[in-house]
Amino acid sequence: MEFELIAGRCGARAGVLRFERGDVPTPAFMPVGTLGSVKGVAPQELRELGARIILGNAYHLMLRPGAELVAELGGLHRFSAWDGPILTDSGGFQVFSLGRLRSVDDDGVSFRSHIDGSLLRVTPERAVEVQELLGSDILMAFDEPPPADAGHDAAEQATERTHRWAERSLSAHRGAGALFPICQGGIHPDLRRRSAAFVAALGAAGNAIGGLSVGESKQLTWQMLEASIAELPVDRPRYLMGVGAPEDLLDGVARGVDMFDCVLPTRLGRNGAVFTPDGKLNLRNASLARQNRPIEERCDCLACRGFSLAYLHHLFRCEELLGYRLASIHNLRFLVRLMERARRAIATGRFNAFHAEFGARYRPPDEAVRAEQRTRWHAARARWSEKAEQQGVQEGE
Amino acid sequence: MEFELIAGRCGARAGVLRFERGDVPTPAFMPVGTLGSVKGVAPQELRELGARIILGNAYHLMLRPGAELVAELGGLHRFSAWDGPILTDSGGFQVFSLGRLRSVDDDGVSFRSHIDGSLLRVTPERAVEVQELLGSDILMAFDEPPPADAGHDAAEQATERTHRWAERSLSAHRGAGALFPICQGGIHPDLRRRSAAFVAALGAAGNAIGGLSVGESKQLTWQMLEASIAELPVDRPRYLMGVGAPEDLLDGVARGVDMFDCVLPTRLGRNGAVFTPDGKLNLRNASLARQNRPIEERCDCLACRGFSLAYLHHLFRCEELLGYRLASIHNLRFLVRLMERARRAIATGRFNAFHAEFGARYRPPDEAVRAEQRTRWHAARARWSEKAEQQGVQEGE
Repeated sequence: MEFELIAGRCGARAGVLRFERGDVPTPAFMPVGTLGSVKGVAPQELRELGARIILGNAYHLMLRPGAELVAELGGLHRFSAWDGPILTDSGGFQVFSLGRLRSVDDDGVSFRSHIDGSLLRVTPERAVEVQELLGSDILMAFDEPPPADAGHDAAEQATERTHRWAERSLSAHRGAGALFPICQGGIHPDLRRRSAAFVAALGAAGNAIGGLSVGESKQLTWQMLEASIAELPVDRPRYLMGVGAPEDLLDGVARGVDMFDCVLPTRLGRNGAVFTPDGKLNLRNASLARQNRPIEERCDCLACRGFSLAYLHHLFRCEELLGYRLASIHNLRFLVRLMERARRAIATGRFNAFHAEFGARYRPPDEAVRAEQRTRWHAARARWSEKAEQQGVQEGE
Repeated sequence: MEFELIAGRCGARAGVLRFERGDVPTPAFMPVGTLGSVKGVAPQELRELGARIILGNAYHLMLRPGAELVAELGGLHRFSAWDGPILTDSGGFQVFSLGRLRSVDDDGVSFRSHIDGSLLRVTPERAVEVQELLGSDILMAFDEPPPADAGHDAAEQATERTHRWAERSLSAHRGAGALFPICQGGIHPDLRRRSAAFVAALGAAGNAIGGLSVGESKQLTWQMLEASIAELPVDRPRYLMGVGAPEDLLDGVARGVDMFDCVLPTRLGRNGAVFTPDGKLNLRNASLARQNRPIEERCDCLACRGFSLAYLHHLFRCEELLGYRLASIHNLRFLVRLMERARRAIATGRFNAFHAEFGARYRPPDEAVRAEQRTRWHAARARWSEKAEQQGVQEGE
């Protein structure tokens, strides 16, 4: 993988990631195909909506169908019929979300599968091996993201373990693809700076910022991002993990982020919410029943080219499968197009104006709504963890 | 609509239905889009897999979103972004499936919505009006299909009411499109013959055979079909309603049927079952986990062009939305292609050989399995009816 900066250095930048499997203009939003499928969307549709790189998840794929099996079948690209570049997450985030189901030591993490309760172990070496078996173009180091509310000591311990594991991940990586280490540091600026400096010194082809947008306030998110980016090399791509709301993408780009991923556009789409230039719109809203216009007049996605809001409303009201697909495709196209427009604005020196124009019109959920969503998300996560734990007791051992 | 016979007259025939919206080569399988969407499949995909005409359902669409609303939005073609011909079922079959929720008199049927329990009424005139509002290219007369186990007297009463309603439907039909009356007659050969003769005398542009494949044995299905077709005009298309298993399509074509519809390919697809030249295959079958070949080597559908059985198995195991789509598309393509191949065989005088070759390889479910499936289907239908009835009590009046 090569990275070339085309416009901008500090602050918003435009560039291109070059892979054998194709070029990825940056800033880039990367759709997430957790289990080898971007939920509801086919590979050809991803290409058509402008996605140039997608994600897979090592944790989920090692459980189902198994990394060795994917390798036997020709790798993740062939398995999922996606011939562009693939970035795989190492599984650190998922494993540490398992709560009481996992036990961590300095060598790695033992945990129970959330599927069948079987006992599994991941070390930095195994996380890299799994991603090499999948055939990833960008592999992520195995890390320990501290919880959003971790105090300084706990965050420091997790961050230092993340550093040791980054070194081990890089040492273990022998095959193809570029391996990105991950900065942590919780919500502590000194730790963020120290972590980014450590990661920068590893000299990897690209660097990721992890552990953000996990419950902390927006103000803290951007403060931590700035502390991290200040220490990261200018000539390497910067990947802000798990951030995907439209307003956040532009705020991240403004601070020098090159790559983003998030399940948000497809998860929202399945729930019937779509992005518009004015904010999110709920397709289940009864007021849309007679709206004979697309979600967004100027959008060139499959949903907006052929279907009215009234029809999309009808599909969601009747729980028709096509609705989930069309809303997901629109949301992905919205984010991909937002990055395309940001890139053009950067190249012509108009990014700040573009950012301001978008922000003046787009109504993001306010902090209170966001906090409530986050609470619900954490509650769902806890139930998931608990369910997995029960399965572990019932089906494991 | 015009119909031209190209090869064959009695027995298997090949022809073409000509509409302003395009030609439909026959014999034809018509995918069902009950609520204005063929479940899991987009209009462009239907075109690509060779579908030339699709179905909508007047009963379902009058409940959601409402026929008047569809008309206000430009009609069903525009609403659902399908620019080829559309055939709509009149709703007779659905209304009479509502069990105790409906009461019938000679003027029409009063029933409670299975959605919200509201009290509704359909007459032959209203059924035609609804279909005209939808903008159908082929409208169906409102009919009373007798249950599969109806004795001679009950079947005769329902059949004679169907005849009166066919006359009223034809009188009410003023707008565009062709209206097809429906033959009934239950499982009684004399009634089948009498009904077909009555319907033939109406001189409509095409004729349908209803009330078959609803629980009776295969032997009876074909006996009743033959009794009906013997009385129907040779120069008008014959539409066998609700039949869609591959072996049944060829058996129907052999007896002179030109058009078929059924939810089977998409319903099976969502359940993970796909058609192959050897019979149905369950994609959830664990033996497929390592199969690195498509469902069918020679199939040109989206699923077979890009994805292995192992991947499809994985999608169903993980309940990924893409699986439902790919399996549905394969099944639709299988039936459409089967009709394309039958048509070529008819045109070159090889249909009997083609039919025999297909039958020698394809393993249909035996009568016992079929009977069990039918029992489950009736039980599900009864639960649906019961649930609708409870909603009627709770939410209606």
